[in-house]
Amino acid sequence: MQDRNFKRQEPRESNQMIFGIRAVIEAIKAGKDIESLFIQRGLTGGIYTELKTLLREFDIPSQQVPVEKLNRITAKNHQGVIAFISPITYQKIEDIIPQVYEKGETPLILILDNITDVRNFGAIARTAECSGVHAIVIPKRGAAQINPDAVKTSAGALYKVPVCRHDSLLQILRFLKDSGLQIVSCTEKTDDLIYKPDYTVPTAVIMGAEDTGISFELIRNSDYLTKIPMAGEIESLNVSVSAGIILYEAVRQRL
Amino acid sequence: MQDRNFKRQEPRESNQMIFGIRAVIEAIKAGKDIESLFIQRGLTGGIYTELKTLLREFDIPSQQVPVEKLNRITAKNHQGVIAFISPITYQKIEDIIPQVYEKGETPLILILDNITDVRNFGAIARTAECSGVHAIVIPKRGAAQINPDAVKTSAGALYKVPVCRHDSLLQILRFLKDSGLQIVSCTEKTDDLIYKPDYTVPTAVIMGAEDTGISFELIRNSDYLTKIPMAGEIESLNVSVSAGIILYEAVRQRL
Repeated sequence: MQDRNFKRQEPRESNQMIFGIRAVIEAIKAGKDIESLFIQRGLTGGIYTELKTLLREFDIPSQQVPVEKLNRITAKNHQGVIAFISPITYQKIEDIIPQVYEKGETPLILILDNITDVRNFGAIARTAECSGVHAIVIPKRGAAQINPDAVKTSAGALYKVPVCRHDSLLQILRFLKDSGLQIVSCTEKTDDLIYKPDYTVPTAVIMGAEDTGISFELIRNSDYLTKIPMAGEIESLNVSVSAGIILYEAVRQRL
Repeated sequence: MQDRNFKRQEPRESNQMIFGIRAVIEAIKAGKDIESLFIQRGLTGGIYTELKTLLREFDIPSQQVPVEKLNRITAKNHQGVIAFISPITYQKIEDIIPQVYEKGETPLILILDNITDVRNFGAIARTAECSGVHAIVIPKRGAAQINPDAVKTSAGALYKVPVCRHDSLLQILRFLKDSGLQIVSCTEKTDDLIYKPDYTVPTAVIMGAEDTGISFELIRNSDYLTKIPMAGEIESLNVSVSAGIILYEAVRQRL
């Protein structure tokens, strides 16, 4: 968290930092996307109550930390509250799907479940942009922080491909199905290969973390479970390589 | 280079270090694969002449460095010479191709030209192992060091998939062609897509570095130039993702 500053024009930039209760409250009211928020443990008072109400209203995750942590982040008068604004502006999948249809395109959506590694996330975003993914959907909790490292690893793709952040991926799955998309999960828990589905129809692909995989409830609500064939003994691809292989199978079919 | 030690059983191990002119000479004579060799600038003497002759004979790359660099690597009596033994044993492509044919398999070889980034190299090795590549070929100069970081990033794949190191990739290309393999280069310098070649015949795929691409002489001696289609604005995939996409096109066709 050290050495952050206020520049935010370049992919290598730091996240924008805001400190002081009133400044953070105004940023939230102005609709800024808060990536992370640190609150001094034991903070009380009327204005703090106002902040707490806002956090609930906008469903912004925050962390209670000792004052020493805040002091390490900035030597300035933080008043017990420091927030980092996301380098990107999150979008709503409910807005994107109709736009894709209106353009006469066939939706290709990428859902990332529990992929918390910042570099893997950035690498996947880069591949998603190159393969024509219309949006990446991540959960509000259990996702990689979109920080300057993620933007850098994405080679700037995070400024190009829309990212949607939602409370419940299950709700998003239902919305996508209602919008005419098939759901294809990439998982080891099947004998069907990634070459089986027809990706020329509207499709959402779900990728899970290398260790935990995709949540059971998302697996259960998928139309296809598919796996990447494995020839060797290691039987484990990096998740960003896996994403590239399945997304490019969709590209190949759509050509 | 600091903090290396002698353990070499685990993927997270350090490279084995050897120091002292006589010890290094004996390691080379015993056929150990030297990954890197540092010689104190200005070193002279009969035994040093013997070392120099051996380096030429076995074509081992070495670096002349100030004594301070050697002192930083080890506090022990290095006598001006420190070598690191490769964590893997290099193999000969001339031995591997006949073995693949004898097993009734169709060769799939991966040639890496100028891919010097250790982590990209490790990630590609991991994907190569999963996709059934029979051997990875790298040049003696202009390749990533195969060090513990490479082994770790490969998830141990570097212990499974043979790696061949040669002076001239062009000579290897000629050998592979004489052995009945077609050469497919993955490059932006073409309009043909990676889906055009028939990968069910014996094939060698060449990947180049993200910045410099594949050397002109290798491009000129390829049977196919192919590129991965790009949908977005960034038009640049990570090389390990690119390798996954083209290798898995071969896997798909071979199923």
